[in-house]
Amino acid sequence: MRNIKIVVQYDGTRYSGWQSQEHDENTIQGKLTAVLSRLLGEKIELAGSGRTDAGVHALGQVANFKTRSQMPCGELLEKLNHYLPEDIGVISAEEVDGRFHSRLNAVRKTYSYHIWNSPVHNVFDRRYTWAIDQPLDVPAMRRAAAELTGIHDYKAFSSIKRGKKSTVRTIEAIEIEQTGADITLSFTGNGFLYHMVRILTGTLVEVGLHRKTPEDMAMILESLDREQAGVMAPGQGLFLVRVEY
Amino acid sequence: MRNIKIVVQYDGTRYSGWQSQEHDENTIQGKLTAVLSRLLGEKIELAGSGRTDAGVHALGQVANFKTRSQMPCGELLEKLNHYLPEDIGVISAEEVDGRFHSRLNAVRKTYSYHIWNSPVHNVFDRRYTWAIDQPLDVPAMRRAAAELTGIHDYKAFSSIKRGKKSTVRTIEAIEIEQTGADITLSFTGNGFLYHMVRILTGTLVEVGLHRKTPEDMAMILESLDREQAGVMAPGQGLFLVRVEY
Repeated sequence: MRNIKIVVQYDGTRYSGWQSQEHDENTIQGKLTAVLSRLLGEKIELAGSGRTDAGVHALGQVANFKTRSQMPCGELLEKLNHYLPEDIGVISAEEVDGRFHSRLNAVRKTYSYHIWNSPVHNVFDRRYTWAIDQPLDVPAMRRAAAELTGIHDYKAFSSIKRGKKSTVRTIEAIEIEQTGADITLSFTGNGFLYHMVRILTGTLVEVGLHRKTPEDMAMILESLDREQAGVMAPGQGLFLVRVEY
Repeated sequence: MRNIKIVVQYDGTRYSGWQSQEHDENTIQGKLTAVLSRLLGEKIELAGSGRTDAGVHALGQVANFKTRSQMPCGELLEKLNHYLPEDIGVISAEEVDGRFHSRLNAVRKTYSYHIWNSPVHNVFDRRYTWAIDQPLDVPAMRRAAAELTGIHDYKAFSSIKRGKKSTVRTIEAIEIEQTGADITLSFTGNGFLYHMVRILTGTLVEVGLHRKTPEDMAMILESLDREQAGVMAPGQGLFLVRVEY
């Protein structure tokens, strides 16, 4: 069996996410699996590096699958893009070692979150940003972001209800860049809990609006209590940028 | 009466153009006029710098209107953006001399046309590009573009059927930039005929596909015959970038 790794871009607007919890067929994974199975003439099981929520986008989601087909990767890439809907694109396909697994072997992930901070609509990127009218205090957001990096138990910043799995993660960096009305937050870490990037973003926005202070962050982390953190930012501003192995 | 100049951005995807020929209400001008009339409490007549076709976008369309209202321009700008749909944004509003007219006083216009030249979908800009799979010969397109600049009768490059008005125009520059799969054509001139930028673009694409040669351009101009020029590029790749006075 060959093991094929693909890198996928998608506009998540129309989808219920990468993979649904409730056997909803309207998923990115579902569309890819259907096209792959048809092209290769066998039932394909596609493993992604992780789920993305409904409405969340990807510039570089990674997935892999095993196949008996001998179709060259270049031909597969071309055919995939031909049959996939126009809001899903496969940017590379390559044969990898049989032991490679897109989720289990991932060592680092980068997400970006895009805020449009202006009362004037962002006409062309409105589907890919969170529009916030009131001016955000970006220096305060950067001080809070520094408090949130490192090795921490991020349970307060996740929607995980209970469970035995560890909620400790390492965030290497949270960078916040401002160019005019565009404010982009970049999160790099070894893994992220369910809803974690969106709750971190919502909390940082509350700091930017002076509803919370950078000094509150340590207390929120220690509380392990979702109620202490801020709102969850909408999915449409979030992009999975890359997965490293 | 005050004379107010506004600069407008829009995503033309959902609209029948800036102004429809057939009393179609689904136009950018129609939306703006309705919101302005409601905000200012009087019937507003809005003059645009020129029409844009169905599906065509604008980064800097210019329009003006007369009003008796004393509402400050800053307040008007804020309220306009609040009530307009999210695919229309007003980026500036200022009081100008009573003699200013957005169409009659325009001296230069710039349009850009965006081509995505790759078999892999442009997932995020698909609504704003013309996707062409086969590789385009950009140097040949540049040689043809040079033949098309200057002072010419552009009748062959327009959908004007007949009429007494001059079809002579000056194109100062047609620049073609390529960055990976993105090919952007920029047209600057003193005015453009109906469908002219789209037919110029379609003709240049035929040169890029080696269906026409740069040397054909002089013959097409001289023919004054629409049948000699190339296809009309789809509206969705076209942007009105700026209007100068």
